[in-house]
Amino acid sequence: MKKLYITFVLLLVTSVVLGAEQFVQYQKTADSQLRLTGTADTILYDANDWEGVKIAVRNLRNDLKAVTGSPCAPILVATVGKSEIALQYKEQSKQLKGKWEQYLIFNDGGKLVILGSDKRGTIYGIYELSRQMGVSPWYWMADVPIAKHKDLYFTPGIYTNGEPKVKYRGIFINDENPCLQSWAREKFGNMNGEMYQHVYELLLRLRANLLWPGMWGAFPEDDPSNSRLYRPDGSYEGNCFNEDDLENPAIADRYGIVIGTSHHEPFQRSQQEWFRHRDEYGNGEWNYKTNRDGVRQFWRDGMEHTKNYESIITVGMRGDDDKPMVDMGSAKENFRMLAQIIKDQQKIIADVTKKPANQTPQVWTLYSEQLDYFDGGLDVPDDVIIVLCDDNFGDVRRLPTTPRKGGYGMYYHVAYYGAPRAQKWLNMSQIQQHWEQLQATYDYGVNKLWILNVGDIKPHEFPTTFFMDMAWNPEAFNADNLYDYTVDFYTKTFGAEHGAEIANIIDKHNKYTAYINAELLNQNTFNLESGEFERVTNKYLVLEARALRVYSALPDNFHDAYWQLVLYPVSAMANLYQMYYAAAKNRQFAEKNDPEANKWAQLSDDCFVRDSLLAHYYNHEMSGGKWNHMMDQKHIGFKTWHTPKQQTPPSVKRVTEASDQDQWVFTSSDGVCVIEAEHAYQRINPSADAQWKVIPNLGRTLSTIAVIPYTSSVEGAALEYMIEIPEEQFKDKIELHVALRSTMPFLKGGHGFKVSINGGEPQEVNYNKDMNWENKYNLMYPAAADRVIETKCTLKLKKSQDNRYILRFEPTAPGVALQKLILDIGSYTKSRLLGIESPHRRL
Amino acid sequence: MKKLYITFVLLLVTSVVLGAEQFVQYQKTADSQLRLTGTADTILYDANDWEGVKIAVRNLRNDLKAVTGSPCAPILVATVGKSEIALQYKEQSKQLKGKWEQYLIFNDGGKLVILGSDKRGTIYGIYELSRQMGVSPWYWMADVPIAKHKDLYFTPGIYTNGEPKVKYRGIFINDENPCLQSWAREKFGNMNGEMYQHVYELLLRLRANLLWPGMWGAFPEDDPSNSRLYRPDGSYEGNCFNEDDLENPAIADRYGIVIGTSHHEPFQRSQQEWFRHRDEYGNGEWNYKTNRDGVRQFWRDGMEHTKNYESIITVGMRGDDDKPMVDMGSAKENFRMLAQIIKDQQKIIADVTKKPANQTPQVWTLYSEQLDYFDGGLDVPDDVIIVLCDDNFGDVRRLPTTPRKGGYGMYYHVAYYGAPRAQKWLNMSQIQQHWEQLQATYDYGVNKLWILNVGDIKPHEFPTTFFMDMAWNPEAFNADNLYDYTVDFYTKTFGAEHGAEIANIIDKHNKYTAYINAELLNQNTFNLESGEFERVTNKYLVLEARALRVYSALPDNFHDAYWQLVLYPVSAMANLYQMYYAAAKNRQFAEKNDPEANKWAQLSDDCFVRDSLLAHYYNHEMSGGKWNHMMDQKHIGFKTWHTPKQQTPPSVKRVTEASDQDQWVFTSSDGVCVIEAEHAYQRINPSADAQWKVIPNLGRTLSTIAVIPYTSSVEGAALEYMIEIPEEQFKDKIELHVALRSTMPFLKGGHGFKVSINGGEPQEVNYNKDMNWENKYNLMYPAAADRVIETKCTLKLKKSQDNRYILRFEPTAPGVALQKLILDIGSYTKSRLLGIESPHRRL
Repeated sequence: MKKLYITFVLLLVTSVVLGAEQFVQYQKTADSQLRLTGTADTILYDANDWEGVKIAVRNLRNDLKAVTGSPCAPILVATVGKSEIALQYKEQSKQLKGKWEQYLIFNDGGKLVILGSDKRGTIYGIYELSRQMGVSPWYWMADVPIAKHKDLYFTPGIYTNGEPKVKYRGIFINDENPCLQSWAREKFGNMNGEMYQHVYELLLRLRANLLWPGMWGAFPEDDPSNSRLYRPDGSYEGNCFNEDDLENPAIADRYGIVIGTSHHEPFQRSQQEWFRHRDEYGNGEWNYKTNRDGVRQFWRDGMEHTKNYESIITVGMRGDDDKPMVDMGSAKENFRMLAQIIKDQQKIIADVTKKPANQTPQVWTLYSEQLDYFDGGLDVPDDVIIVLCDDNFGDVRRLPTTPRKGGYGMYYHVAYYGAPRAQKWLNMSQIQQHWEQLQATYDYGVNKLWILNVGDIKPHEFPTTFFMDMAWNPEAFNADNLYDYTVDFYTKTFGAEHGAEIANIIDKHNKYTAYINAELLNQNTFNLESGEFERVTNKYLVLEARALRVYSALPDNFHDAYWQLVLYPVSAMANLYQMYYAAAKNRQFAEKNDPEANKWAQLSDDCFVRDSLLAHYYNHEMSGGKWNHMMDQKHIGFKTWHTPKQQTPPSVKRVTEASDQDQWVFTSSDGVCVIEAEHAYQRINPSADAQWKVIPNLGRTLSTIAVIPYTSSVEGAALEYMIEIPEEQFKDKIELHVALRSTMPFLKGGHGFKVSINGGEPQEVNYNKDMNWENKYNLMYPAAADRVIETKCTLKLKKSQDNRYILRFEPTAPGVALQKLILDIGSYTKSRLLGIESPHRRL
Repeated sequence: MKKLYITFVLLLVTSVVLGAEQFVQYQKTADSQLRLTGTADTILYDANDWEGVKIAVRNLRNDLKAVTGSPCAPILVATVGKSEIALQYKEQSKQLKGKWEQYLIFNDGGKLVILGSDKRGTIYGIYELSRQMGVSPWYWMADVPIAKHKDLYFTPGIYTNGEPKVKYRGIFINDENPCLQSWAREKFGNMNGEMYQHVYELLLRLRANLLWPGMWGAFPEDDPSNSRLYRPDGSYEGNCFNEDDLENPAIADRYGIVIGTSHHEPFQRSQQEWFRHRDEYGNGEWNYKTNRDGVRQFWRDGMEHTKNYESIITVGMRGDDDKPMVDMGSAKENFRMLAQIIKDQQKIIADVTKKPANQTPQVWTLYSEQLDYFDGGLDVPDDVIIVLCDDNFGDVRRLPTTPRKGGYGMYYHVAYYGAPRAQKWLNMSQIQQHWEQLQATYDYGVNKLWILNVGDIKPHEFPTTFFMDMAWNPEAFNADNLYDYTVDFYTKTFGAEHGAEIANIIDKHNKYTAYINAELLNQNTFNLESGEFERVTNKYLVLEARALRVYSALPDNFHDAYWQLVLYPVSAMANLYQMYYAAAKNRQFAEKNDPEANKWAQLSDDCFVRDSLLAHYYNHEMSGGKWNHMMDQKHIGFKTWHTPKQQTPPSVKRVTEASDQDQWVFTSSDGVCVIEAEHAYQRINPSADAQWKVIPNLGRTLSTIAVIPYTSSVEGAALEYMIEIPEEQFKDKIELHVALRSTMPFLKGGHGFKVSINGGEPQEVNYNKDMNWENKYNLMYPAAADRVIETKCTLKLKKSQDNRYILRFEPTAPGVALQKLILDIGSYTKSRLLGIESPHRRL
């Protein structure tokens, strides 16, 4: 299907400049351009250059082929100080001297040169070229198709992206069960090098440089019958980067990725390593007081293992299992102990590396209670980076007001597993939230390290990209270009025809997700009475309609990427809203014994099933099952922050179905009482052969009710309605609107009815007798096109003792088809759908 | 994509039994079953049988091949009294004797026998087999795919569908410009036999037998530059069945279709024939008084031309161009004249056919003013069928209370071009409406002829099918099985997996279309203030979401059929609702000089464009352009019932865009005043370097406003809000809710603000200082997950003379990010989205 929607918010996209300016073109526009397609694959590099550079070159070659299908023209790739090739470019090498992760790209007489100041400088230069050619950093991790182009041209100039404003930028894979871990085990056997290589490549394409590997694995609440998640003693097992694949650290280093560890894992040793090896270290206690030497040896071994790789060493100490440090007896003693620990740790670093500790990057991460030590003025060496934290939901807990030599970092979350509820399933936050906090973070001088907790990586593709771009250059962003950035991202991902519309959908989607996390959402979240719940649910479903329109319009090869990046999150959230709204409506109707309750119960149940169908599609059908398990995370039925063992649907209540004998009682509210005609207090049939019969769904109303067949007499037929009019609303005269199907006078003399209240004098109305040829333009056609005839009469009311009134309706001819009754006690305002039914209950 | 939705209304489908009971199976379940797939195509029939039977046999052979891909087993087809083969089946032939359009189907020792009482009896039997094999009557006219099955089996038994309860059942192609006529001319050169054959086949597969051919063509308001639509003298041209293709009547007869003509075209001669040949008949006046002989000769020539074909002759006379008959001077004289005309017409029939007139079926159709003649007791011969009419919108105008020999018929509309507005574009009606009127029609003994005005045939596929099924056996339907019928139709069309969901979508869609015709819908139709317009628009868009879900889930080969039968009507109507709603919202906001108006204006304009994109897809992309012109009908911008020359979008108004200097004034309503923070009366910046800055879209609210950068002092910064509190709402104490972004105390001591009203004593609030580790569970995490901190303080109010109050908000620390202010003057009810902004205007 072609594009069949309009991008609802059109704007002139001012792209946020984050990479070098655009130097790749698909069409030749000037003779000076260099054609990048050639006859032989001639990407030249020095065999002595970094391994990571060579890996990137290999990827570049694949990218070029994927784009043009042809071999490439000569490209020279070189790292200053590492490659002989760089010596040919003295002037440019000088410019790059001492720079961190910078590249220059230029044309040297028909050869494209990518020159890097260091390993990642060169790598980023290579991937900048890929990105400009149209290869998304997410081409593998989110199946973003690579668009084909016949040719590629390089526009003359010298291009660079400068140095990053934040030195270390990366992600923390965390709480990776049940999703990423299960996926990795199924697809790769484990969280091994084969799996991690995809992560490294992604990070480098995103211009990141740092990884805190996954270390968490199963939780006690996870399925104990799954033996792979548990150790023989029954305790749960996490992932262990150094041991699950002994090659893991070496591969990371080869790729050019710096490895760190989470806040509570000193010396690159995951929590799991301690669990597995504690018996080898002293008395096996994770306690610096009772097992100082054991713990120190554990750390020293870690340092030995990592010393040859580019690493950041976590210092400080928390307790086992990500809890506060073992209490030393008093705050003061804890304080003293932590200071001592860090001092000792620096000594280990110096001992093992045989260099002053300040030559090894170190971090002390102020997660949770650790901030109190910092606030208390704990003295840490100048050269340690102090990593501040957010509150797990993207609000920074502390920004520094005093500069220090080692500088500051920020540990930030887009995914989280903890109190008050998990935020693990989908991205729930807006990039606007992130920008607002991260601009402050940067402005307060926090620029040594930014790390983002991304949970399972998927489905946090967009905020992760934003975080890395923001970390590269926070100064490029402001409140007014965040939306432009969104448009730019989705345009690059899905093409110019659909990018702006998709961006608008995601911008709205994340605004809605930020209303409340999926795991906290329930049938009480929104105000049902005020219409808020209906409005917000409809808005979400309307957003899904827009997302589906795009899906239909996108070429097939974009469907998988679109499903994971857009359609699944939008549809799944819209479905959750509909489910909880249906449950809320069910309760409202069930309280009144209204059979409408059953429809809402069914809808709630159906949505619950649909939730699992959507996840099933993500896991098993999308991308041919490539991402199985990535949507294993439960998100319905949370009672605490722990994931429930299984999803449970909202509880709903069913009532007895409607019957002809139902007795309904209405209450007027705000001076009006609107009654759907089938909700009578009593139906009086004229004979056994002629009966009041509901025609479901007929009309603008709930239904239509009439005595059928129309060939029988209606003598004696009546409908009675019971209405309670609270004293303060009582009036002695009311206007009664009777809405009937637009029946023409098919019997001569036409159709009519009598109405009376509490046995009073009946009013008789004939509502169609003049709808003939003579009156075609003023009566017949207008009523016909309207499909409803609305009559009005005035009824006198005598105050009743119990505030109850019986309205009696009697047809005076066969074929009278009644739809709605409106008692206007002073406040009815005209509406096409004849008002919303007033409060009513079934006896 | 697989099925990713739940059929929201599940039910046990009690299929409405309209054909014979199911005798075709796809799997062998009993030895007694007859396998219908064989090794040679052996459908045997007598060369002497009806031509129409042979055509149906040819189609059956194709259908069998399409289903199984194999030749068929022996099938015998025979018409009693026409085929030698029938003589072998004496017993069965006896059963069929004298029956109208009845068939018997049975297994005669390994041969399947289809035996018909007459031509159409046999044909209907053949198509019953096709239908049971899974070939939709709409396989060509709506591109419904034919499902493949390896084998077909016939379950033993003798099957019949009885006789139809209504003798003549058919359609009237009417007002066929700009759609069907343009389509026919492009695809077939004209409305010729090649085109009509598709119509005949469709009708026979639907078990209909009657056609009133198209005769209308262009209208004066149509494009005069299109010469094909006009005669040389500039007057517009209609279609002429007998002359546009001289073979037309013969082909119809060969197929087995009875031809009639519309109410104002006696003797099978279309209005166009008179236009073209009037000069050959007397003085050329269509006036029985001044040109009696000319008119009679015209009629006689018609009778000569048609006498050898199965026809129904229209008698009576209306005026030229579908207007009332030329006035003869008085009602009495008109009356007398019409009686005379019919008498004379009977004579012509008898003269030409050389048989008594009562041996030729005749109708007198009581369209428009003609009913008055009937009501006046005009005496027509017993053998003429009196065809009653509806009001063009599906409400029958008269039902008979006196039986007569010739009986009665009904001319009914699902499409119409006339006052008050056209109903030409899409089906706007519910089958419930049709059933309710047609059951009465049948009950009052109207059973000789039912004809449906279907406009261009497409897109009235569903109600046309319903009408024919109802005409075959009205007794099979009741109020409770109409929905089952819908499910059955869409299940047969799209398969069991999706049928019920599609049926539910269409049932809702037609409920919504029946709210008001598309051509009458505009920005004033629904109540905007009460939320009715928003609700109904959202409901339509939500329905579109459901329709799109099904589209994504359907196999590709169903997409074209689904687009024309479901997705186009639903999407196009949802889009119209959104357009008019947007225009209504635009007006509402523009009146208050609110820049929101511009977004709505854009949306309205965008929807207008999208309408044409959807129609363009239907015409040009769907089914490879097979149905080009079928969606040429304009439907936006009607001022009268005449189609406008071009569609014009709803008028919208744009206002100046938002700026930092905007001054907003609020009015409290119902005891509460809700203010989006960016809508200040005045923004006071603390310095040139630190400014109030709106962060669009951040929060549950419109936006967030804060002084940026957060590293600057906020000394002197303030926001002022102007609020009008009408006297009757005034209270001397109000609760002020201030909603802020969930900022943590990133600066020690936390964040706060001062508020004051009309220069009164400011209240100071610190809203986050205790959100620390100690209070993580009770304060920090809940606020973080909420993403909003809502504070409350009480302010004293002094009554002001002009009822205006200035609320002043001053941040006391950098990083205070304000989202919403709520002045609770007694009536605020909690809501997740912090209420809907109160009435406000921009100065």
